[in-house]
Amino acid sequence: MTFVNEPNPTEALRAVFRRHASGVSVITMNDPEGEPVGFTATSMTSLGANPPLASFNVASGASSWRAMNTAEYVAIHTLGTGNLELAKKMAAAHENRFIDSDWSRGAHDLPIFTDTSAVLIAKVREIHAVESNAVVIVEIQEGLIGSEADALIYHQRAYKATGATFE
Amino acid sequence: MTFVNEPNPTEALRAVFRRHASGVSVITMNDPEGEPVGFTATSMTSLGANPPLASFNVASGASSWRAMNTAEYVAIHTLGTGNLELAKKMAAAHENRFIDSDWSRGAHDLPIFTDTSAVLIAKVREIHAVESNAVVIVEIQEGLIGSEADALIYHQRAYKATGATFE
Repeated sequence: MTFVNEPNPTEALRAVFRRHASGVSVITMNDPEGEPVGFTATSMTSLGANPPLASFNVASGASSWRAMNTAEYVAIHTLGTGNLELAKKMAAAHENRFIDSDWSRGAHDLPIFTDTSAVLIAKVREIHAVESNAVVIVEIQEGLIGSEADALIYHQRAYKATGATFE
Repeated sequence: MTFVNEPNPTEALRAVFRRHASGVSVITMNDPEGEPVGFTATSMTSLGANPPLASFNVASGASSWRAMNTAEYVAIHTLGTGNLELAKKMAAAHENRFIDSDWSRGAHDLPIFTDTSAVLIAKVREIHAVESNAVVIVEIQEGLIGSEADALIYHQRAYKATGATFE
C-alpha cells in the first residue's frame, strides 16, 4: 500500500475530491419574483430510471438557495467542452449570470441555455437538508437533446475535456 | 435552439446521462457476517466540507443493498485510469468481486483496494429512501491519499481518461 494517511477528515475530503472527476451541469430556475437564477453544479447524478429521478446538492449559503426553496421546476443543463465559459460564468458573481443573450424561456418559463449538450426539465420532489447543505431530488418531465458533444469535466480544480476511450 | 424534444421522461433521462460524464468510485463495506461487499458507483459526490460529508446512490435491488442497510462504515475509493479493470470487476458478477488479492483489511476492518488513487473512510449517517433507490449520506473520518493519477471517467456508456485541461 502506497497511501499516505490523512487523519483530518476535512483535509481528507478535499484531497480525495481533487482526485475525483465530475461532469459539469448548470441548473436554472425562477425565484419567487420570476427572475432567473442558476448555478454550476458538479454533484448532479441519476437516481433511477423508473420513475426517472436525478439529484444534486446545494449549500444553504449559496446565492441560489432562496429560489431553490420555492422553485417548483428546474432545468438541468449538461455541459460539453463548448460550454466552458458558461460553466465559469454560472460559478462566478451571481448578478452577471443572465446578462448575456445566451438563454431564452422554455417549459414552465424556465431559463434555458440554448447552446448546451442537453437539458432535463424536472419537477422538484424533495429537498433533504443535511447540516448546511441539501440534497435536491427531482423527477424528470421531459428532455431537450442536443448534439453528442465531448463532455466537460471538473478535476484537480480545473476544467478538462474527456480523453481517450478504453476498450 | 438546436435541441430535439424528448417527451418521454425515462428516455430523456437516459439520453441526457449518456452525454453527462462522471467520475468512478468503488464503495466497499462488510455484510452482517463480516464478508466484503462492494460496487462501482458513478454517483459519489461531496456534500459539504464542514462537517465533511459525501453522498452516493444505491438501488434497493442491488446485490449490495442488504449490506448497505447494516453497514456502519464504508470505504470510498476514487479510481484512476489504472483502475479500469477494478471498475469493471466491481460492476460485474458480485461473487467475483473479492476473489483476487488486490485488497486488504483497513480501518474498521473495511476491505481496501490498495491500488486506487485515494480512499475515504466514512461513517454511514443516513440512508434516505426515494422510490426503489436510496441516497446514502456518510461523514468522512479519515483519508488514504495515493498519487495524483489521471481520473477514470464514465461517459457515453464507456470508460475514458480525462483529457486536455482548459485555461
